[in-house]
Amino acid sequence: MYVILVYDIGDKKVGKMLKLCRKYLNWIQNSVFEGEITEVKLKELLSEAKLIIDKEKDSIIIFKSRQEKWLEKQVVGKEKNELDNFL
Amino acid sequence: MYVILVYDIGDKKVGKMLKLCRKYLNWIQNSVFEGEITEVKLKELLSEAKLIIDKEKDSIIIFKSRQEKWLEKQVVGKEKNELDNFL
Repeated sequence: MYVILVYDIGDKKVGKMLKLCRKYLNWIQNSVFEGEITEVKLKELLSEAKLIIDKEKDSIIIFKSRQEKWLEKQVVGKEKNELDNFL
Repeated sequence: MYVILVYDIGDKKVGKMLKLCRKYLNWIQNSVFEGEITEVKLKELLSEAKLIIDKEKDSIIIFKSRQEKWLEKQVVGKEKNELDNFL
């Protein structure tokens, strides 16, 4: 399964969340990740994420597609994932 | 065509960008939008966006799917788009 994950969380928790998401997915923009993941691994990610976020304030949205080819990606401006190498 | 649009842009331009994107799409999280849009309208949106962003620093990523049903959406935590009514 191919997913896009975006989060909007309090500043203090961003570091933890970033680290968690990068364990499972590819970081493509500030708070946006994408990648192939199994249903089981996604559940694992979300269980861990729920320990980090404040459910009253923070949010995570996951878009799931059975196949990556069903989604076409277009980037305007700077491609950010080059940063990935430095962190 | 169904799209998800995410941007990562400098603070000073966020207001303009938000206003522009909301003309064409539904705001679902901080810098995330989704919705049905034609290829022509998307080009229009991106032409206007290119006038706002700094191509060296800012980025916009668009994921396009021919049909919304090919994407399943899951939200964890707070659903943000209720804010839409207040702005």
